[in-house]
Amino acid sequence: AWRSMMQTVTLIPGDGIGPEISSAVMKIFEAAKAPIRWEERNVTAIKGPGGRWMIPPDAKESMDRSKIGLKGPLKTPIAAGHPSMNLLLRKTFDLYANVRPCVSIEGYKTPYTNVNLVTIRENTEGEYSGIEHVIVDGVVQSIKLITENASRRIAEYAFEYARNNQRNSVTAVHKANIMRMSDGLFLRKCREVAENYKDIKFTEMYLDTVCLNMVQDPTQFDVLVMPNLYGDILSDLCAGLIGGLGVTPSGNIGANGVAIFESVHGTAPDIAGQDLANPTALLLSAVMMLRHMGLHDYASKIQTACFDTIRDKKVLTKDLGGNSKCSEFTADICRRIQDLD
Amino acid sequence: AWRSMMQTVTLIPGDGIGPEISSAVMKIFEAAKAPIRWEERNVTAIKGPGGRWMIPPDAKESMDRSKIGLKGPLKTPIAAGHPSMNLLLRKTFDLYANVRPCVSIEGYKTPYTNVNLVTIRENTEGEYSGIEHVIVDGVVQSIKLITENASRRIAEYAFEYARNNQRNSVTAVHKANIMRMSDGLFLRKCREVAENYKDIKFTEMYLDTVCLNMVQDPTQFDVLVMPNLYGDILSDLCAGLIGGLGVTPSGNIGANGVAIFESVHGTAPDIAGQDLANPTALLLSAVMMLRHMGLHDYASKIQTACFDTIRDKKVLTKDLGGNSKCSEFTADICRRIQDLD
Ligand SMILES: CC(C)[C@H](C(=O)O)[C@@H](O)C(=O)O
Ligand SMILES: CC(C)[C@H](C(=O)O)[C@@H](O)C(=O)O
Repeated sequence: AWRSMMQTVTLIPGDGIGPEISSAVMKIFEAAKAPIRWEERNVTAIKGPGGRWMIPPDAKESMDRSKIGLKGPLKTPIAAGHPSMNLLLRKTFDLYANVRPCVSIEGYKTPYTNVNLVTIRENTEGEYSGIEHVIVDGVVQSIKLITENASRRIAEYAFEYARNNQRNSVTAVHKANIMRMSDGLFLRKCREVAENYKDIKFTEMYLDTVCLNMVQDPTQFDVLVMPNLYGDILSDLCAGLIGGLGVTPSGNIGANGVAIFESVHGTAPDIAGQDLANPTALLLSAVMMLRHMGLHDYASKIQTACFDTIRDKKVLTKDLGGNSKCSEFTADICRRIQDLD
Repeated sequence: AWRSMMQTVTLIPGDGIGPEISSAVMKIFEAAKAPIRWEERNVTAIKGPGGRWMIPPDAKESMDRSKIGLKGPLKTPIAAGHPSMNLLLRKTFDLYANVRPCVSIEGYKTPYTNVNLVTIRENTEGEYSGIEHVIVDGVVQSIKLITENASRRIAEYAFEYARNNQRNSVTAVHKANIMRMSDGLFLRKCREVAENYKDIKFTEMYLDTVCLNMVQDPTQFDVLVMPNLYGDILSDLCAGLIGGLGVTPSGNIGANGVAIFESVHGTAPDIAGQDLANPTALLLSAVMMLRHMGLHDYASKIQTACFDTIRDKKVLTKDLGGNSKCSEFTADICRRIQDLD
């Protein structure tokens, strides 16, 4: 009976330090008795029929069934024409929202304290349309595509997220003073959707102003929603405020309940296989995943243990300022989880 | 004979606090005996023949003659169809490079110290092309235009600037992983120009990575060069690192020696006319102007006095954390200049 309560998650360990940090997360989930059954898959693209790059059928099939993925860092192979794995996954599963909660971690010093915001990035269109032309020699155009549907969908996601996560305000980030039609459309959809969420405060701000205000006082922001490229920029900027990609979780939300949670740092080939990696970003992504699945108690337990280990400063990986191994850091979190029970 | 050494500068006092901070700058220049003759002009656009918006002929004529402008904040009138004054000035004088030195000001506390970098923004094309279309209902495209000529020109400007200002490195900021053709062209031109400046280190970095690294450690950057929109974002972000637009100078460089230096903050109508404004941004822009004109000794004298007043903390305007009036702050700087003599 207990077995039947288990939910399946497709685990994509990834490359470089990916396998190590994935197994750290699995150990911690086991210590927390999280009701997750992992189904490991490799997603690195292969050439399908007709020469189109695609993720391997067994990985696709697993994701289609489980709907939920947890993914470590992926190396994009340098084979000619190989697409970025990030872009391919977004496309394959129509992962239209990238969500990054940026929350200051007590004990991990950065120039900022009390950051507590979430960037929500439209993930499918905008500057990432891939449509470019040479007009005449020496003149190139790239097309930014903004649609009503994608704009409404991301705006709705942002407001739903705010409501479901006890957040008070949503800020639409744009340059509609310059791109009047495209960003204008995005902004109009945000305004329309805002009408249906009277409990959430809605504001609009130019991207340049957001960046200026962000580095001066990030605590003024709550949920931010924006087109693709602005999200690419702002989500990394905000990760920087709380300590970088090594401690920042990320989730990619698709239609029909599909979602992939991932650490957005690199594969760190220089330290791979040496038990030196920091699993925090993947672990906090897995915590986001648990919340997304409604498993809030497990999420809180694991997050508390992880933050306690960091605050305590005794068992930290090198990048966090300590001397411990990945396995020691992992064991410390597991011990705290068991103590919490 | 001394009179004939004077150079004319077109002064555009601007709106709101513009006239106050302009007259502060004039007082300080007088105290420094800077050989500048001011020619005051109003640039607010008028409707010319054929209904095209244009800056008034006497302002245009003054700029064409003097080649150098100093400009306070401008309110863009809300008349229907009135263009952004910033965009109109850039266009009228082909101001292709926006230059913003961001240097930490001793005594003015921000989360960062020792910031010392310069953003150089392509100011004429990219996402600012103004070309947009509705493709079908609910689908809009904006066109980003990148040209070989504008890319080469800004790259050359950046390397010349680095060489002439004793700077060691130039970083090209791009998203050529996504916009392979447009940002790819920009990047290629930067690489080509870099070949001619072997004394300057050249690096390339994704915009998202720059933002992440910038908020973690801005001291790693020196000169940064980038397309229009990225510059809009990064120049404001960097201004935030050193205390905001109230202390950040800016210069817009055009062809044939034309240049307009300006404070990029707003007109602050709420405090206009009350002797409360902070003239620092306009003053430091005027210092940039003096350097551009080769008047380095005057530039250094004025900058030293301004920084001394701020470091001393005794006579500061409200936004700088003090209780003094604009005129008192100005007088303190003048006194220090006279003491330096
Ligand atoms: C790798 C690259 C395609 C990607 C992007 O630009 O979106 C990355 O920066 C990201 O944020 O996932
Ligand atoms: C006012 C606006 C047109 C402008 C821009 O986006 O370029 C401003 O943000 C700037 O940086 O001068």
